[in-house]
Amino acid sequence: MQARAFQDYYPEQLAHCYGCGYLNDRGHQIKSYWDGDETVCRYRPKPYHTAIPGYVYGGLLASLIDCHCTGTASAAMYRRENREMGTEPPLRFVTASLRVDYLRPTPMGVELEIRAKVLEMTDRKVVMEAWIEAGDQVTVKGKVVTVVMPEHLVEE
Amino acid sequence: MQARAFQDYYPEQLAHCYGCGYLNDRGHQIKSYWDGDETVCRYRPKPYHTAIPGYVYGGLLASLIDCHCTGTASAAMYRRENREMGTEPPLRFVTASLRVDYLRPTPMGVELEIRAKVLEMTDRKVVMEAWIEAGDQVTVKGKVVTVVMPEHLVEE
Repeated sequence: MQARAFQDYYPEQLAHCYGCGYLNDRGHQIKSYWDGDETVCRYRPKPYHTAIPGYVYGGLLASLIDCHCTGTASAAMYRRENREMGTEPPLRFVTASLRVDYLRPTPMGVELEIRAKVLEMTDRKVVMEAWIEAGDQVTVKGKVVTVVMPEHLVEE
Repeated sequence: MQARAFQDYYPEQLAHCYGCGYLNDRGHQIKSYWDGDETVCRYRPKPYHTAIPGYVYGGLLASLIDCHCTGTASAAMYRRENREMGTEPPLRFVTASLRVDYLRPTPMGVELEIRAKVLEMTDRKVVMEAWIEAGDQVTVKGKVVTVVMPEHLVEE
């Protein structure tokens, strides 16, 4: 049985994100999981997520990396603190910087794997590398720096 | 009278992009224009483009910068070659790398200005800085490297 996804543990007030919030009916609602020391999210782009016909829109790929990494940061911080995900206080992250390198066009019609790995972490910051696999090819590489969400945002 | 937007000159086979294609009914259909040596695109996020309530989803902001910059690259290359936009052969660009720094949360409910400026260009590459203004604040900064679209993609 698949474990609950990282995003399923987000508290309700933080679950409206277009990329990863389970309360956003119009959004991507991505789901991320541990896979050893890596994390993985599987996503099949919609037919209208086109760049040019046959290939996936780069903005979507950047978005998937972004949200998968804020989820990975949260999961990694809970793990580091030996806490169950979802326990209070919530550990939620925002993106400080996102870098995406498009190595080759990403083909439509296959389920993508978005993967990430923690490179570095402190009490307030998690830095990750990420990549996207389409079939047996890595089409995109990314690096994401996330920081703990400011408290006034968590509490709103 | 407002000039035609950069994107309005894209040939049909290259006008399906979710971010900037006028043939993509589900997409953002952004419109970019010259403003002196800068380029500008105005966009009002939809209510569901949420990060956390009250603030705009970072993946959308990255996407807007990305597509505004591929359009800027095209316009800048036509200008450099003293050609009218839309003349054959088409000058279209793809993103090689995208870097986005989120300086502060971007508020919902205001029309955003996505701006860009060419930093460097060669025959095949255009490097730009970009930023997003929400009211009188710059909330996001970006740097985008684009390269001429490979011919086999232009012709498909």
